[in-house]
Amino acid sequence: MTNFKIGFIGLGAMGWPMAGHLAKAGLLNCVWNRSSQKAQQFAAEFDVETTNSPAELAKRCQLVLICVAADNDLLAVIDAITPALQAGSIVVDHSTVAPATAQQIANRWVNDNIEFLDAPISGGVEGAKNGLLSIMAGGSNHTLQKLTPVFDCYAARVSHMGEVGNGQATKAVNQVLIAGVAEAVCEGLALAEQLDLPHEALLQVLQNGAAGSWFLDKRGATMLADDCDTGFKLELLVKDLRICRQMASDNNLTLPGVNRTLQDYLQCLAAGDGAQDISALIRLKREQLLIHD
Amino acid sequence: MTNFKIGFIGLGAMGWPMAGHLAKAGLLNCVWNRSSQKAQQFAAEFDVETTNSPAELAKRCQLVLICVAADNDLLAVIDAITPALQAGSIVVDHSTVAPATAQQIANRWVNDNIEFLDAPISGGVEGAKNGLLSIMAGGSNHTLQKLTPVFDCYAARVSHMGEVGNGQATKAVNQVLIAGVAEAVCEGLALAEQLDLPHEALLQVLQNGAAGSWFLDKRGATMLADDCDTGFKLELLVKDLRICRQMASDNNLTLPGVNRTLQDYLQCLAAGDGAQDISALIRLKREQLLIHD
Repeated sequence: MTNFKIGFIGLGAMGWPMAGHLAKAGLLNCVWNRSSQKAQQFAAEFDVETTNSPAELAKRCQLVLICVAADNDLLAVIDAITPALQAGSIVVDHSTVAPATAQQIANRWVNDNIEFLDAPISGGVEGAKNGLLSIMAGGSNHTLQKLTPVFDCYAARVSHMGEVGNGQATKAVNQVLIAGVAEAVCEGLALAEQLDLPHEALLQVLQNGAAGSWFLDKRGATMLADDCDTGFKLELLVKDLRICRQMASDNNLTLPGVNRTLQDYLQCLAAGDGAQDISALIRLKREQLLIHD
Repeated sequence: MTNFKIGFIGLGAMGWPMAGHLAKAGLLNCVWNRSSQKAQQFAAEFDVETTNSPAELAKRCQLVLICVAADNDLLAVIDAITPALQAGSIVVDHSTVAPATAQQIANRWVNDNIEFLDAPISGGVEGAKNGLLSIMAGGSNHTLQKLTPVFDCYAARVSHMGEVGNGQATKAVNQVLIAGVAEAVCEGLALAEQLDLPHEALLQVLQNGAAGSWFLDKRGATMLADDCDTGFKLELLVKDLRICRQMASDNNLTLPGVNRTLQDYLQCLAAGDGAQDISALIRLKREQLLIHD
């Protein structure tokens, strides 16, 4: 690893703390970010270099880590770095994109001795800040093992899910669960509000039985207080659910539950709650409860 | 408590182990069960007396505990014991029924100095066997506190939720969550099967992140092995979801998520899976995934 120079592209809500952990461990050489002001702030805070373009970063580094928002952002970065990547380089994408996009990237480099891993993350902004993310990775397990010292800087757990694309496929399954669990919890708690059940006793008895979940545990009390500012943004969940639908459709599959929940989440966006945590769905549920059949 | 004689009505999958814990603690005087053979088996195993009717049990006891299947079963027991109950008696119902049924029972006795608590339970057959149930209770908190030595025999936690009916209302909310979480988990895991993701790595990475839940943790591995024999029966969940809908309707509310999941669960019953654990929903999800829009 010592001869590897490492670059990080994408200093958003997740990328910034992840790259920060790498820098603090002395493993980060340079960064690039679409807004250069942010890159300069990061470089000043963590004493690493900025680059003028993704291509310059790719030229200088043998390991390129990427964490951007969506498929188009990722593909733009891939287009920019492709001519500059050296043979033997490794590119790891931590963004959440379609499995097909990941496979497309890997195929593009298959004859260039450039390796690609799709490695989406879960654990939220808290997980990134605490360096306790989960990584679900697709691609060469041998390469994945080699990168352990890097991932250890920001992840508590790395799971190898199979070939390239399987990391993103696993993330898609993860988002199917998250969207559906949130639906159930928000409808149940909106009902409990209408029934005037005492909040604290309610949350305790629900969480300690078969109705318990991460989402109820972490977001139950805040959503009952209508505090939905912190967490995973509704607009990102909608983006991810669209990936799930596309992936299902690519595989000739239908996701009836996802299709139904997506309708609800789109209504939340239409109501202006796109930048709120997904627990803001309880606002829609409060309205739905009052609509008569 | 020492001058209180205690009787237990309903020795089903839950009632038997609950009454068994009471008997082992030396707190149980007599039992009654619709099938008298079962009552005699219980009496022989735990060295307590049987009674010939609910009325005889009510005549002999100052605390009557009930755990039967549904509203009609409970109301039949209530009809039978009402003429026999002594003033100062307490009746506790551990069944899952409509909040309105609980209120109706309490109102019936309001001038007779007979107290009623609705105290549905969660934690499943395992919880009953291990004496670790959760009780969500409605009614007098003073009475509830008096009964602590009794509930301690089979419950790890007792939550006072407010007036009579609020125990059942809380249980209804609990079932809304359980039904919806199971929908999300079953659809997600059915998708993962189609994508050929490795089961063990998948369950681990899902459970350790924001997609985690009791249901995924306890039923994920078994349902991927199509083992759905043990747990909470689909036909009982359907009964409970009908209670949720009725309760919502009584309060002029609509539960769109419950209405949708109920359709799925009814299909599971139609497919002959009513006596299977609710994780058998994955069988329907496997079929739904293959239906094209």
